[in-house]
Amino acid sequence: MVKNKESLSVVKIGGNIVDNPKALESFLNDFKKLEGNKLLVHGGGVLASKMAKQLGIETKMVSGRRITDEETIKVVTMVYSGWINKSIVATLQKIGCNAIGLSGADANCIPSIRRSPVPIDYGFVGDPDPNKVNSSFISQLLESDIIPVFCAITHDENGSLLNTNADTIAYSVATGLSKNYNTSLYYCFEKEGVLKDINNPDSLIATMSFEECEVYKENGIIVDGMIPKMDNSFKAINNGVSEVIILHANNLLNRKGTILK
Amino acid sequence: MVKNKESLSVVKIGGNIVDNPKALESFLNDFKKLEGNKLLVHGGGVLASKMAKQLGIETKMVSGRRITDEETIKVVTMVYSGWINKSIVATLQKIGCNAIGLSGADANCIPSIRRSPVPIDYGFVGDPDPNKVNSSFISQLLESDIIPVFCAITHDENGSLLNTNADTIAYSVATGLSKNYNTSLYYCFEKEGVLKDINNPDSLIATMSFEECEVYKENGIIVDGMIPKMDNSFKAINNGVSEVIILHANNLLNRKGTILK
Repeated sequence: MVKNKESLSVVKIGGNIVDNPKALESFLNDFKKLEGNKLLVHGGGVLASKMAKQLGIETKMVSGRRITDEETIKVVTMVYSGWINKSIVATLQKIGCNAIGLSGADANCIPSIRRSPVPIDYGFVGDPDPNKVNSSFISQLLESDIIPVFCAITHDENGSLLNTNADTIAYSVATGLSKNYNTSLYYCFEKEGVLKDINNPDSLIATMSFEECEVYKENGIIVDGMIPKMDNSFKAINNGVSEVIILHANNLLNRKGTILK
Repeated sequence: MVKNKESLSVVKIGGNIVDNPKALESFLNDFKKLEGNKLLVHGGGVLASKMAKQLGIETKMVSGRRITDEETIKVVTMVYSGWINKSIVATLQKIGCNAIGLSGADANCIPSIRRSPVPIDYGFVGDPDPNKVNSSFISQLLESDIIPVFCAITHDENGSLLNTNADTIAYSVATGLSKNYNTSLYYCFEKEGVLKDINNPDSLIATMSFEECEVYKENGIIVDGMIPKMDNSFKAINNGVSEVIILHANNLLNRKGTILK
């Protein structure tokens, strides 16, 4: 039985934390204190690029997205689903959180569509449909007090693993589960939130509506990698997620950041 | 609710199959046809050694066991929990088996004790206690028609991932679940079973008791890596597993091999 509209926190962390065991454990101790149901989504692009380099595989990026050829999907699967995912799970177990590490292929949690090779062939890269997220299995884990930890690997249901943007995984899982839960989506990163001036942490924009966001985009305040993050956030809100907070990983518990609504 | 004494097949496959996508898919199609509850345990030592070599990490073995230092536990976790485990899960999903890939850290399925550094310091290597296998969670997956796929990584419940012999994982899971299920343990490898003459596939020993096994050991017929496999097998039988079959991966469905009892 699905618990009716209990709270759920979907927390996404980036590669900068997962690459630092001390920062990671400190963050996970905060994560442990979050009340209600919760799950974690992690990136790991920095470590994947390091590993690719060590293996002599060239990292090719187009508009901030990794071109994922046959060698690269192997490397990102090893790094994301293997080392990072299991290190996080082992650390959560150590601090008393019964976690389970999952890719989108596991229990068919997050099936994806391989991205069209036109106009740019990104290779083994997939985009999930939030309506296809296996919310019943994920809910079953949450009801058993097991904390899902998702890496940024999905599959096409036809045998191929697919590299998938971790922000998009978080958006898809949060949206897919918002039918069952009052869902908050936390995007943790290395800034205080959305800043008017990227070099001034005091210029935090505390709340933002979709219309305000559009103006910030036009004015060049929201640029580059922040654009897909904001687009994912407002899509999540339009599709049932109660709130999205963009914040520094250190502020998870005090919720100081940019709240979108 | 645990199903009372339904059947369960615990199937262990070695690294030679997982390194060959065509052989792997053919094997998984057979595995799919096994009736009753089932789960898979896989090795991957050959691929791990290749990856270590590519990364310039020296593979050190003592009595057929890998010395697992800090760099090596990272490599084996990447290869076993990452690439191999998720490739198997994606292939099973493709052929219509709803699989989930797990390490022993996930949902605390298989907690282990790190092996004592005396007399040989194997590093991050662990030995599970079958009584601590999380049989209630694994049973819950089986009841939901989800097929667990275990890699040979466990954890010490104190934050460390541990390299663990895949035969021992299979033994531990089979033994831990034999309280709930009539459990058959299949050790698939590249020979027809236990052979009187290792170079003659027609010299298969079709059945073997513990006493007969002891004689074969004394006579030098069972040697090297087969000794721990046989010891695990008879320990499993002594601890509740109904039967152990040692056979070629191609014979999973016709069960032609060495049946221990």
